[in-house]
Amino acid sequence: MAKTKLRYGMVGGGIGSFIGEVHRKAAGMDGRMALCAGCFSQNAERNAQTGCQCGLDAERVYASYAAMASAEAAREDGIDFVSIVTQNDSHYEIAKAFLQAGVHIVCEKPLCLTAAQAQELSALARRNDCLFAVSYTYPGYTMSRVMRQMIADGAIGEIVAVNAEYAQDWLLDELSPQPQQGNYVWRMDPAVSGASNCVADIGTHIACFVHYVTGLPIRRVAATVNRYGRLLDLNANILVEYENGVNGAYWCSQVAAGHANGLVVRVYGTRGSLQWHQETPDLLRFAPKGEPVRVLERGGHGVPQPAGSGSRLPVGHPEGLYVAFANIYRDFAQALLQKQNGIPYDTGSLTMVEEGVAGVRFVEAVIASAADGSAWTAV
Amino acid sequence: MAKTKLRYGMVGGGIGSFIGEVHRKAAGMDGRMALCAGCFSQNAERNAQTGCQCGLDAERVYASYAAMASAEAAREDGIDFVSIVTQNDSHYEIAKAFLQAGVHIVCEKPLCLTAAQAQELSALARRNDCLFAVSYTYPGYTMSRVMRQMIADGAIGEIVAVNAEYAQDWLLDELSPQPQQGNYVWRMDPAVSGASNCVADIGTHIACFVHYVTGLPIRRVAATVNRYGRLLDLNANILVEYENGVNGAYWCSQVAAGHANGLVVRVYGTRGSLQWHQETPDLLRFAPKGEPVRVLERGGHGVPQPAGSGSRLPVGHPEGLYVAFANIYRDFAQALLQKQNGIPYDTGSLTMVEEGVAGVRFVEAVIASAADGSAWTAV
Amino acid sequence: MAKTKLRYGMVGGGIGSFIGEVHRKAAGMDGRMALCAGCFSQNAERNAQTGCQCGLDAERVYASYAAMASAEAAREDGIDFVSIVTQNDSHYEIAKAFLQAGVHIVCEKPLCLTAAQAQELSALARRNDCLFAVSYTYPGYTMSRVMRQMIADGAIGEIVAVNAEYAQDWLLDELSPQPQQGNYVWRMDPAVSGASNCVADIGTHIACFVHYVTGLPIRRVAATVNRYGRLLDLNANILVEYENGVNGAYWCSQVAAGHANGLVVRVYGTRGSLQWHQETPDLLRFAPKGEPVRVLERGGHGVPQPAGSGSRLPVGHPEGLYVAFANIYRDFAQALLQKQNGIPYDTGSLTMVEEGVAGVRFVEAVIASAADGSAWTAV
Amino acid sequence: MAKTKLRYGMVGGGIGSFIGEVHRKAAGMDGRMALCAGCFSQNAERNAQTGCQCGLDAERVYASYAAMASAEAAREDGIDFVSIVTQNDSHYEIAKAFLQAGVHIVCEKPLCLTAAQAQELSALARRNDCLFAVSYTYPGYTMSRVMRQMIADGAIGEIVAVNAEYAQDWLLDELSPQPQQGNYVWRMDPAVSGASNCVADIGTHIACFVHYVTGLPIRRVAATVNRYGRLLDLNANILVEYENGVNGAYWCSQVAAGHANGLVVRVYGTRGSLQWHQETPDLLRFAPKGEPVRVLERGGHGVPQPAGSGSRLPVGHPEGLYVAFANIYRDFAQALLQKQNGIPYDTGSLTMVEEGVAGVRFVEAVIASAADGSAWTAV
Repeated sequence: MAKTKLRYGMVGGGIGSFIGEVHRKAAGMDGRMALCAGCFSQNAERNAQTGCQCGLDAERVYASYAAMASAEAAREDGIDFVSIVTQNDSHYEIAKAFLQAGVHIVCEKPLCLTAAQAQELSALARRNDCLFAVSYTYPGYTMSRVMRQMIADGAIGEIVAVNAEYAQDWLLDELSPQPQQGNYVWRMDPAVSGASNCVADIGTHIACFVHYVTGLPIRRVAATVNRYGRLLDLNANILVEYENGVNGAYWCSQVAAGHANGLVVRVYGTRGSLQWHQETPDLLRFAPKGEPVRVLERGGHGVPQPAGSGSRLPVGHPEGLYVAFANIYRDFAQALLQKQNGIPYDTGSLTMVEEGVAGVRFVEAVIASAADGSAWTAV
Repeated sequence: MAKTKLRYGMVGGGIGSFIGEVHRKAAGMDGRMALCAGCFSQNAERNAQTGCQCGLDAERVYASYAAMASAEAAREDGIDFVSIVTQNDSHYEIAKAFLQAGVHIVCEKPLCLTAAQAQELSALARRNDCLFAVSYTYPGYTMSRVMRQMIADGAIGEIVAVNAEYAQDWLLDELSPQPQQGNYVWRMDPAVSGASNCVADIGTHIACFVHYVTGLPIRRVAATVNRYGRLLDLNANILVEYENGVNGAYWCSQVAAGHANGLVVRVYGTRGSLQWHQETPDLLRFAPKGEPVRVLERGGHGVPQPAGSGSRLPVGHPEGLYVAFANIYRDFAQALLQKQNGIPYDTGSLTMVEEGVAGVRFVEAVIASAADGSAWTAV
Repeated sequence: MAKTKLRYGMVGGGIGSFIGEVHRKAAGMDGRMALCAGCFSQNAERNAQTGCQCGLDAERVYASYAAMASAEAAREDGIDFVSIVTQNDSHYEIAKAFLQAGVHIVCEKPLCLTAAQAQELSALARRNDCLFAVSYTYPGYTMSRVMRQMIADGAIGEIVAVNAEYAQDWLLDELSPQPQQGNYVWRMDPAVSGASNCVADIGTHIACFVHYVTGLPIRRVAATVNRYGRLLDLNANILVEYENGVNGAYWCSQVAAGHANGLVVRVYGTRGSLQWHQETPDLLRFAPKGEPVRVLERGGHGVPQPAGSGSRLPVGHPEGLYVAFANIYRDFAQALLQKQNGIPYDTGSLTMVEEGVAGVRFVEAVIASAADGSAWTAV
Repeated sequence: MAKTKLRYGMVGGGIGSFIGEVHRKAAGMDGRMALCAGCFSQNAERNAQTGCQCGLDAERVYASYAAMASAEAAREDGIDFVSIVTQNDSHYEIAKAFLQAGVHIVCEKPLCLTAAQAQELSALARRNDCLFAVSYTYPGYTMSRVMRQMIADGAIGEIVAVNAEYAQDWLLDELSPQPQQGNYVWRMDPAVSGASNCVADIGTHIACFVHYVTGLPIRRVAATVNRYGRLLDLNANILVEYENGVNGAYWCSQVAAGHANGLVVRVYGTRGSLQWHQETPDLLRFAPKGEPVRVLERGGHGVPQPAGSGSRLPVGHPEGLYVAFANIYRDFAQALLQKQNGIPYDTGSLTMVEEGVAGVRFVEAVIASAADGSAWTAV
């Protein structure tokens, strides 16, 4: 009989963490998977409490991800996949352990800290036949998929320019001569974040999103990166050359006052343009050449199928972040169930480990270019 | 030991229905309640399938709400409360059955079809000591609660005018001389909707929301109602006089081309104004007298506490409809658990049955005023 | 030989006045008319200074409008028309004097203080064959003319609802228990403004604009009017019934914090809707039924002709208020020159004295309705 | 006696030209200057007609700018200054002729085609004590001056990033494989435009505006420039390094579908940010660190003085392009009259010839950088 439900585990996401909670709510939204195991925190008490709150059997709340990987792989009712929502520096080791145990993966971005690690993970996933998605968030929104389909369908013709940005202001305090004591931000710590904070955290969202909607791979980048006296980057401007020779420009910043979470992606073609802003994710601005600008609304008139059919709520009822993540989990579950049931499956709507590899390479190239006087640097 | 989780049942919400699914996802979001019983559809197969999909024991999937009410009331592990998400005409009988069985209630709006029914339900809830919430949706959004707190705190001074509207266009086809065969819309059927379609469906949202944020009760209304040759109203303009003599104006329409779900509420006072638009629910426009307009963002700078603390996601990450409903269920669960644990509880953030009564009275008064040449009609 | 240029005079508009300066700049913008005479102020010195600044011959700067009317009518090179930009209470007498002298007129709105006066002026203009325009400002914007043409052309089908508002906040201080001494606002003085301040000042703009774009005459109104303890109205809500039975709702306010000059007119039809906001006058929001919303831009793609051809600047370059007034003067000059040259002329793009009469009647009906308990009152 | 009015001439701007008409309307708006001479077109008939339409004496309508320069310089009532509104390639020769004749200048941008020419003009202006303004348009808007003052006053602290763009779509047809015959665009002709079309036409507006509001000179640029198979650039992305080491990014395009005239400048500092969009020129978005975003309106609350006092119309009444140019002419006239009257004068609100020089250098550096593989190139 065909399997219809999945079991999953989580590494990271102890009580109080933001993104782990989002993953759990999103994974639970469609009733197709149950959280059955976890290693939520290195703090034993917090780990136990989180497991308890999630209704897990105590024996499946593990003290280490390594123990979890081997124990779950050995159980008959072991988890089908694991969600990795820890800090960036640990993704590599954790993912490796689960891949070695043959467990499928949904991992937070960035995939890991170096391109070498990333490629190793990608190869390992292929070798062990594991599905490995990297949860880049924004391709989960229905209108980003509509944008992708419209570009593929030729709605804007051939692409001639891309302009994208991701601006936030939550690290403005880092610009103060004396950042406040005790205000440790792990993203600004090279031990956790590797060579990059801002580009790795949000610059990769830009690169991933643009690739997702346009299909254009990046050939090389030329960048300025600003650290303002801190150890890691807080702002970057990036010239992009895609493999077909077209140019784009990306800007990411965590010190741009007045921007909460401003991912804005605009793609221009010979026959029109498309613009998406993640703070109003249900809208898509479409400017067909020679005609007035149109505002497409998720669930509304003139939204092309099949991409538009991912909409869950009637037009005018905002969906929001949980739904974007739920769409990712829904699609991942669909692919995994089909795979496990021996049916051909499709991960086309997801951002898989290859996208994660590309993301890490993008970060490395941007940081290298900046270090090399903004010289063009291959990705 | 204190009870920390609730069991709930659902009447209505069979597979394919919109609002039932929203309620289930929202109720499940915080892990404080489990769906344990249901009577989802009068179609036996659909009923069973929904129960199965929700993971219910077959014996707790009931053929009738009446059977469900009595059986659940008799079980030791019976439901703590029931969600009623059926069509409007059945709310009264269903709610009555559960109240008589002592079961607490979350009921979709409008509460029922006549003020007499509404008052009977309200009295019965009081007599049987049942918590009875009417799920008016929009007060579930954090920024509507911020708006309420700011008004209460005097941010805009004394209220001098209200302008509110709820515009949609999904019933535009009803204006065609020959509406399409087979395109039955139950909201346009007096047998299901009673004396009003548009005012009952969305006009009440306006009345409820304005009352929620301002606290002003309506004394009387004077209205025009437009049916455009159909049996029930599709558009209405309503002059409002609050009990303190201040005036407002409401407009609701389901034939306003270009509006998806346009609930916009603006409250003006001697010292400023506040505006909330449900299609961008994370924003609140605040215009303090003599100063530039400010845009408050959920989770962002300058949002007053405690109302602002209801935010679940960081600023700039849209929350959306599921979260609004989840907030309602979270607050209902909190109150009910405290009540059951013998702790004083507060339903102040919820819209309870009294608000449902006011809503039905509002509809009756609007329809009566229109029938009486737009004469002022007491609510 | 055909006459190609006009001479005009001005009554009111002394140095420092707002609207007189706007009229002069607008009239001068196209080089088709020259200011040749004036009676700018009852203050002799200010009158002389204004004349001097405008480059007038001293002998054509008059101490009284009456002297000006007779002297100019007697000159061979007398003015072709007069612009009346005084306070509302003097329009009637001044207009009458110039009509009796056979001088054409552009007069600020409201036309005068009573419907009886208004009709007298209208009849007199007809009898003396004078062109008499009332400068309602907003129909001067190109996109309001595009809106009008699109409605006439059936772009939105049959009209089913109108919602319009004009909200300002410049009189918020009038709500203070002790409005500041010395802060005399002539609009709040019944001696100058007659029976109405807010409805006469800005409510009439709504009525005129809606009539201009829809062509629908108002049959009757039912209104609430708010004076907040002052002598004249500061806020009003108005239910409207047009002669074809369709309803609309208008709101005007001068105490709506956060609104600078918010005239917003929305017209809904069986096949779409159109929305215009005077603070972004170069845009027109068009929502065709069953299609995404479109944003038409003055001078841009998809703007219908001939209305769109009134655009003076390329798309994306804002035109603004002076241009709106310049369009009115351009059209008035065009009609007057054709009339004087014996060519058939058309005043269809202008708001003529009949519109001024309708405006005064509208004000009277609104005030009367409010005094009569919001009873329906014929216009 | 102090001189209070100016005489001016115009080169270029024959009937039908866009920008010449704008200059004339703007110059005429304040009544402080009269057009007295012109050389409007090389087409004799068009030249004569324009002069006639402008009311000039036939003898002061010249066949060549050279004749005009010498004749006007020789007249006792000769022009005080000349407006040069011809195509870009002729600015240099024309400006030189008038400077040599000692005539002050307002010249359209870009100043000329090469930095060598630009510096020569600048030196000549200094030597001959001529006021020489380059009419960059956007600093003429009141809110751009408010932005400048706020930055100077420290409202956003120390600048840490700049992001600016100027996007249009009017040359989209240039991307077609076969651009339409007969559709000659002089801006795309190197004979007229020199080495650059897009950067010279609108990229310079960005550079000028950012310098105007921030005061930051550019040290070097690194750029990609896109010609899409045509002779001149249609799109460019530019990394900027200011002399203080801060980075910015500029994007200009004439092939960005959906943008009419999208100059958007955003400046970020340690204590806040400011954003101005020329399509809504009366607004300024101000995001003070740690507070909600504010929308400042020209003429409205909280707009700092003295910059805000340049507003001509009450808040909420759009001013538009003519007013921006009129402000430039007003300030130029003010400075010139004071100079001629022997009073100390200030050209601080204007963009003078030095800004024109900087603009030409900027264009050269951008084109050179692109030709050199996007290498950093000094400005």
